[in-house]
Amino acid sequence: MLRARGGWQALRRSASLPGARPAVRLRVREALKAPEPADAVQVQGWVRSVRSQKEVLFLHINDGSSLENLQVVADPNLEKRDLTFGSAVEVQGKLVKSPHKMQNVELKAETIRVVGPCDTWSFPLKMKERHPLEYVRQFPHLRCRTNTLGSLLRIRSEATAAIHSFFQDNGYVHIHTPIITSNDCEGAGELFQIETSNEARESAEKTHFFNVPAFLTVSGQLHLEVMSGAFTHVFTFGPTFRAENSQSRRHLAEFYMVEAELSFTESLQDIMQVMEDLFKTATSTVLSKCPCDVELFHKYIAPAQKDRLEQMLKNKFVTISYSEAVEILRQASQTFTFKPEWGCDLQTEHEKYLVKHCGEVPVFVINYPYDLKPFYMRDNEDGPQHTVAAVDLLVPGIGELCGGSLREERLPFLESRLQRLGLADAYQWYLDLRKFGSVPHGGFGMGFERYLQYILGVDNIKDVIPFPRFSHSCLL
Amino acid sequence: MLRARGGWQALRRSASLPGARPAVRLRVREALKAPEPADAVQVQGWVRSVRSQKEVLFLHINDGSSLENLQVVADPNLEKRDLTFGSAVEVQGKLVKSPHKMQNVELKAETIRVVGPCDTWSFPLKMKERHPLEYVRQFPHLRCRTNTLGSLLRIRSEATAAIHSFFQDNGYVHIHTPIITSNDCEGAGELFQIETSNEARESAEKTHFFNVPAFLTVSGQLHLEVMSGAFTHVFTFGPTFRAENSQSRRHLAEFYMVEAELSFTESLQDIMQVMEDLFKTATSTVLSKCPCDVELFHKYIAPAQKDRLEQMLKNKFVTISYSEAVEILRQASQTFTFKPEWGCDLQTEHEKYLVKHCGEVPVFVINYPYDLKPFYMRDNEDGPQHTVAAVDLLVPGIGELCGGSLREERLPFLESRLQRLGLADAYQWYLDLRKFGSVPHGGFGMGFERYLQYILGVDNIKDVIPFPRFSHSCLL
Repeated sequence: MLRARGGWQALRRSASLPGARPAVRLRVREALKAPEPADAVQVQGWVRSVRSQKEVLFLHINDGSSLENLQVVADPNLEKRDLTFGSAVEVQGKLVKSPHKMQNVELKAETIRVVGPCDTWSFPLKMKERHPLEYVRQFPHLRCRTNTLGSLLRIRSEATAAIHSFFQDNGYVHIHTPIITSNDCEGAGELFQIETSNEARESAEKTHFFNVPAFLTVSGQLHLEVMSGAFTHVFTFGPTFRAENSQSRRHLAEFYMVEAELSFTESLQDIMQVMEDLFKTATSTVLSKCPCDVELFHKYIAPAQKDRLEQMLKNKFVTISYSEAVEILRQASQTFTFKPEWGCDLQTEHEKYLVKHCGEVPVFVINYPYDLKPFYMRDNEDGPQHTVAAVDLLVPGIGELCGGSLREERLPFLESRLQRLGLADAYQWYLDLRKFGSVPHGGFGMGFERYLQYILGVDNIKDVIPFPRFSHSCLL
Repeated sequence: MLRARGGWQALRRSASLPGARPAVRLRVREALKAPEPADAVQVQGWVRSVRSQKEVLFLHINDGSSLENLQVVADPNLEKRDLTFGSAVEVQGKLVKSPHKMQNVELKAETIRVVGPCDTWSFPLKMKERHPLEYVRQFPHLRCRTNTLGSLLRIRSEATAAIHSFFQDNGYVHIHTPIITSNDCEGAGELFQIETSNEARESAEKTHFFNVPAFLTVSGQLHLEVMSGAFTHVFTFGPTFRAENSQSRRHLAEFYMVEAELSFTESLQDIMQVMEDLFKTATSTVLSKCPCDVELFHKYIAPAQKDRLEQMLKNKFVTISYSEAVEILRQASQTFTFKPEWGCDLQTEHEKYLVKHCGEVPVFVINYPYDLKPFYMRDNEDGPQHTVAAVDLLVPGIGELCGGSLREERLPFLESRLQRLGLADAYQWYLDLRKFGSVPHGGFGMGFERYLQYILGVDNIKDVIPFPRFSHSCLL
């Protein structure tokens, strides 16, 4: 996050709060990395612990710039009634080398000002308690003040930046695909519809704000395909929506998707290579930029995940075809609730088995049955087991993380398929893309929250997004 | 966009399309910057012009990686019936120094393959025509293939990256504030409401998917304020929505906002400094990263804008108070449709006059009447003209580009204000933020599309977003 360039001098920032004598204002992260002791330093943040001894008062303060707190050492007469856990303080003093081996520096306080007190009695977070994730989820406005959510949000911010950088460094143009759309890309029917508040309150027979029924997007793919007619490499990274009536630990009504589309691509392998590169580059970046924050998860939440990730980064992902997958499942000693059969969707239990069978590594499954997949996927023209050039990426503990395909760029194929579905009129614009300089192309989408779940080993998707939205819940 | 690191070798990419002999595949931008001639180069893209002479065939091809086309020179016998404007081609040959002074290199074609023909008769874009923006707006699926929209989208992508970088370089944590919310931040009432498709179709009396009425966000501010209780610097950059029944050239139903929130800030000046820094840093980055794309706008669309921007980057923004603004307007020789009076909103005509009065530069207007502004703005406790610590940034040609304020962090002030509005129960969580370690804080939002309109001099906001949504229109 904070990149201290140019050393100590570059960190100087004047402390402008009234009443303070001129001092260098430092963030906690900057203070912890200070290359030399300094007089007249000011640090602000929230009190994470207060320990009062006869001779000395210890405070830990945190300002969100790092997981690590800054230790403040003060004369006990600086203690005040409202200097409690959770209060906001401004401390001024000397930054010195710490005699304790647990930390590099500490701040010897000369003044402590309580900027905002905290009613500890009613504050749902308690000092030095490791609150379970389920508990803090009840307090969406306060949970960012816990170590775990603080780390999560810093990691999420770095992962977002890493994904943007990956695409920019590879010459992709970033496109804001629309949130409100008159299409239903997946045809899954689990859509949120949009009305103005007035329309919603009255009858549904009235004219719509947009003249047509409008929905929240389930994917930016079709709009990225528009852009694929002008740019060879495009991506989008934004919110997508499913009105799925599910309380599962893997589903949200509002979640983020990273989607990319590549033109002049005739091979599914090219798409899979980008998926794998993105995954590995983003993960390496996060691991190197937020080592402490990631360690918190790998130490307290998912101890096995660290080794898994290291293995994953070293090895090439495994690829099997859907037909091979079904064969593996049929020969499994395990009995499944859903009998594995060619032509049927892979269920979560199947995905789990396949990942285990391949050694708990990410697995690409390619070439799915034609009849299982949406209209835009490219016909492999094989037979008798008719498939399309689709790919799903399955990862340990999560299941499906990414989905992609080559898109049907041939006008006659697409036209007859849309006609059979009765969609040829609605998708005339999409057919147009194949009439005017059509190119072989393909792309994929990656669920960002599932990605975070995977790298951190977080069981419930609600704990990797700042404000989770799911059926029966839209807090704040 | 594409950053060619490590020179020529680093650009090599194998050409894997079947039928092609091994060649170095280059994007147009890479080919144009190639440091030396090369055999066996493959370039793909869309034909922007075909000029057939007796002895030689000239093509211009573009792949979206730059505004400039690559000139292809070929033997006339390589011409085919379907090698037309708009078709997608793959050209293989020698990259040589061009004898023409208009370009650095040209591609001497050995093979030309038409990957996807273009039905020029029904294709709404015509060769070498400069279609007006209003015309191409009718074809949201094809307009990205014009020079103007191509440049716009590259600039938009770079501006997005520049804004993310600005905040990251300054230690801000990026937060995905929610799109679906149960709050109405501005209380403006122009909200989109969300239902599942089933609910929308049936009666509005049923239970909601989220149990409560849910809306599309109008601002991420309140959610950023949640984060301001744990992080001193946060930002968000995402879609926001207003169900405004307006066909104006400045309004969209779906648009992007950049919002930031700073903790431990007691001065509106601090907020304004960040607004100015963001604006100038992003603009300088865009100007240096996309000089040709920006030039297209400054040459053909808004000739005066280049000088204006240069002036803007050199000078400090002007600051006047709302009271001063009203005084300036009252003393104006101009007559206004709305008479300027203390306590009334500034109208577009007023904003225009103020910007002109200050010399056609960006102008901060600060300290607005208490009664004009939302509940969360910090009371200045002045009088008899009671104001809040609010700021609007007005820019030439656009009007309001950014709005910001210090937020009311004092529990009693906020409580009494919410009680008077009858909102104390609904905003209990927001009051909580002031009960538990409250800090002086403030922030701002910048309309991203208006920002692009300003730097490029684009008159209509519909032309700076990939897929515009406004009343009566939601194409694709």
